[in-house]
Amino acid sequence: PGWRRRRGRLERTFELKDFMGALRLVNRVGRWAERVQHHPDISIQWNRVTFSLTTHDAGGITEKDLELARQIDRLAARRD
Amino acid sequence: PGWRRRRGRLERTFELKDFMGALRLVNRVGRWAERVQHHPDISIQWNRVTFSLTTHDAGGITEKDLELARQIDRLAARRD
Repeated sequence: PGWRRRRGRLERTFELKDFMGALRLVNRVGRWAERVQHHPDISIQWNRVTFSLTTHDAGGITEKDLELARQIDRLAARRD
Repeated sequence: PGWRRRRGRLERTFELKDFMGALRLVNRVGRWAERVQHHPDISIQWNRVTFSLTTHDAGGITEKDLELARQIDRLAARRD
Protein backbone atom coordinates (compact mmCIF):
# COMPACT_ATOMS: atom_id res chain seq x y z
CA PRO A 1 0.00 0.00 0.00
CA GLY A 2 1.09 3.56 -0.55
CA TRP A 3 0.78 6.65 1.60
CA ARG A 4 -2.01 6.90 4.10
CA ARG A 5 -3.22 9.88 6.08
CA ARG A 6 -3.25 9.40 9.80
CA ARG A 7 -3.77 11.99 12.51
CA GLY A 8 -2.66 14.95 10.43
CA ARG A 9 0.26 13.05 9.00
CA LEU A 10 1.14 11.32 5.76
CA GLU A 11 2.77 7.94 6.37
CA ARG A 12 4.29 5.17 4.31
CA THR A 13 6.32 2.08 5.17
CA PHE A 14 8.90 0.63 2.80
CA GLU A 15 10.28 -2.87 3.05
CA LEU A 16 13.87 -3.26 1.97
CA LYS A 17 16.06 -6.31 1.52
CA ASP A 18 17.74 -5.97 4.91
CA PHE A 19 18.89 -3.49 7.54
CA MET A 20 21.63 -1.97 5.38
CA GLY A 21 19.11 -1.47 2.57
CA ALA A 22 16.88 0.34 5.05
CA LEU A 23 19.78 2.51 6.23
CA ARG A 24 20.67 3.43 2.65
CA LEU A 25 17.13 4.59 1.95
CA VAL A 26 17.12 6.62 5.17
CA ASN A 27 20.34 8.33 4.09
CA ARG A 28 19.07 9.05 0.62
CA VAL A 29 15.85 10.56 1.98
CA GLY A 30 17.76 12.31 4.77
CA ARG A 31 20.07 14.09 2.35
CA TRP A 32 17.09 15.22 0.29
CA ALA A 33 15.18 16.36 3.39
CA GLU A 34 18.16 18.42 4.48
CA ARG A 35 18.42 20.00 1.06
CA VAL A 36 14.77 21.11 1.06
CA GLN A 37 14.77 21.73 4.84
CA HIS A 38 11.67 19.62 5.39
CA HIS A 39 12.38 16.58 7.56
CA PRO A 40 10.15 13.54 7.94
CA ASP A 41 10.01 11.55 11.12
CA ILE A 42 11.68 8.23 10.35
CA SER A 43 11.49 4.87 12.03
CA ILE A 44 13.60 1.83 11.21
CA GLN A 45 12.76 -1.72 12.22
CA TRP A 46 15.42 -3.90 10.67
CA ASN A 47 14.40 -3.93 6.96
CA ARG A 48 11.35 -1.67 7.32
CA VAL A 49 11.41 2.10 7.18
CA THR A 50 8.41 4.29 7.96
CA PHE A 51 8.33 7.96 6.98
CA SER A 52 5.82 10.22 8.69
CA LEU A 53 5.30 13.67 7.18
CA THR A 54 3.61 16.76 8.51
CA THR A 55 4.13 20.51 8.39
CA HIS A 56 4.43 21.58 12.03
CA ASP A 57 3.92 25.29 11.27
CA ALA A 58 0.64 24.52 9.56
CA GLY A 59 -0.50 21.86 12.04
CA GLY A 60 -1.17 19.31 9.30
CA ILE A 61 -0.39 18.03 5.82
CA THR A 62 0.54 20.63 3.22
CA GLU A 63 1.81 20.73 -0.36
CA LYS A 64 5.37 20.47 1.06
CA ASP A 65 4.49 17.05 2.47
CA LEU A 66 2.90 15.84 -0.75
CA GLU A 67 5.98 16.97 -2.65
CA LEU A 68 8.31 15.24 -0.18
CA ALA A 69 6.20 12.06 -0.37
CA ARG A 70 6.56 12.01 -4.16
CA GLN A 71 10.30 12.50 -3.85
CA ILE A 72 10.60 9.68 -1.28
CA ASP A 73 8.79 7.39 -3.73
CA ARG A 74 11.30 8.33 -6.42
CA LEU A 75 14.26 7.70 -4.13
CA ALA A 76 12.81 4.38 -2.97
CA ALA A 77 12.23 3.25 -6.56
CA ARG A 78 15.91 3.90 -7.23
CA ARG A 79 16.89 1.58 -4.41
CA ASP A 80 19.88 -0.62 -5.15
CA PRO B 1 18.11 10.38 31.58
CA GLY B 2 19.75 7.18 30.47
CA TRP B 3 18.32 3.86 29.40
CA ARG B 4 14.94 2.79 30.67
CA ARG B 5 13.25 -0.59 30.50
CA ARG B 6 9.85 -0.55 28.88
CA ARG B 7 7.73 -3.49 27.79
CA GLY B 8 10.63 -5.92 27.42
CA ARG B 9 12.79 -3.33 25.71
CA LEU B 10 15.70 -1.11 26.62
CA GLU B 11 15.22 2.43 25.31
CA ARG B 12 17.14 5.67 25.23
CA THR B 13 16.67 8.97 23.42
CA PHE B 14 19.59 11.15 22.40
CA GLU B 15 19.28 14.80 21.49
CA LEU B 16 21.69 16.00 18.85
CA LYS B 17 22.45 19.46 17.47
CA ASP B 18 20.25 19.04 14.42
CA PHE B 19 18.89 16.53 11.90
CA MET B 20 22.27 15.84 10.29
CA GLY B 21 23.77 15.20 13.72
CA ALA B 22 20.97 12.71 14.36
CA LEU B 23 21.59 11.01 11.01
CA ARG B 24 25.31 10.72 11.74
CA LEU B 25 24.63 8.99 15.05
CA VAL B 26 22.17 6.62 13.34
CA ASN B 27 24.83 5.71 10.78
CA ARG B 28 27.49 5.18 13.40
CA VAL B 29 25.21 2.92 15.44
CA GLY B 30 23.91 1.26 12.27
CA ARG B 31 27.38 0.24 11.13
CA TRP B 32 28.13 -1.19 14.56
CA ALA B 33 24.79 -3.03 14.69
CA GLU B 34 25.49 -4.59 11.33
CA ARG B 35 28.94 -5.66 12.47
CA VAL B 36 27.60 -7.44 15.55
CA GLN B 37 24.38 -8.50 13.76
CA HIS B 38 22.16 -7.12 16.49
CA HIS B 39 19.95 -4.28 15.25
CA PRO B 40 18.09 -1.80 17.41
CA ASP B 41 14.81 -0.25 16.32
CA ILE B 42 15.59 3.39 15.60
CA SER B 43 13.37 6.41 15.41
CA ILE B 44 14.42 9.88 14.28
CA GLN B 45 12.49 13.06 15.00
CA TRP B 46 14.57 15.88 13.59
CA ASN B 47 17.41 16.16 16.20
CA ARG B 48 16.21 13.33 18.45
CA VAL B 49 17.09 9.68 18.02
CA THR B 50 15.53 6.88 20.05
CA PHE B 51 17.07 3.41 20.14
CA SER B 52 14.92 0.51 21.29
CA LEU B 53 16.68 -2.77 22.03
CA THR B 54 15.38 -6.26 22.54
CA THR B 55 16.42 -9.80 21.67
CA HIS B 56 13.55 -11.22 19.61
CA ASP B 57 14.72 -14.83 19.95
CA ALA B 58 14.66 -14.51 23.72
CA GLY B 59 11.48 -12.42 23.92
CA GLY B 60 13.13 -9.78 26.09
CA ILE B 61 16.27 -7.97 27.13
CA THR B 62 19.47 -10.01 27.19
CA GLU B 63 23.19 -9.44 27.68
CA LYS B 64 23.41 -8.66 23.93
CA ASP B 65 21.13 -5.66 24.47
CA LEU B 66 23.06 -4.42 27.50
CA GLU B 67 26.28 -4.70 25.49
CA LEU B 68 24.77 -2.83 22.52
CA ALA B 69 23.42 -0.12 24.86
CA ARG B 70 26.91 0.43 26.27
CA GLN B 71 28.34 0.65 22.77
CA ILE B 72 25.65 3.15 21.67
CA ASP B 73 26.59 5.33 24.65
CA ARG B 74 30.23 5.20 23.56
CA LEU B 75 29.36 6.12 19.97
CA ALA B 76 27.07 8.93 21.11
CA ALA B 77 29.78 10.36 23.40
CA ARG B 78 32.08 10.53 20.38
CA ARG B 79 29.56 12.65 18.50
CA ASP B 80 31.07 15.43 16.44
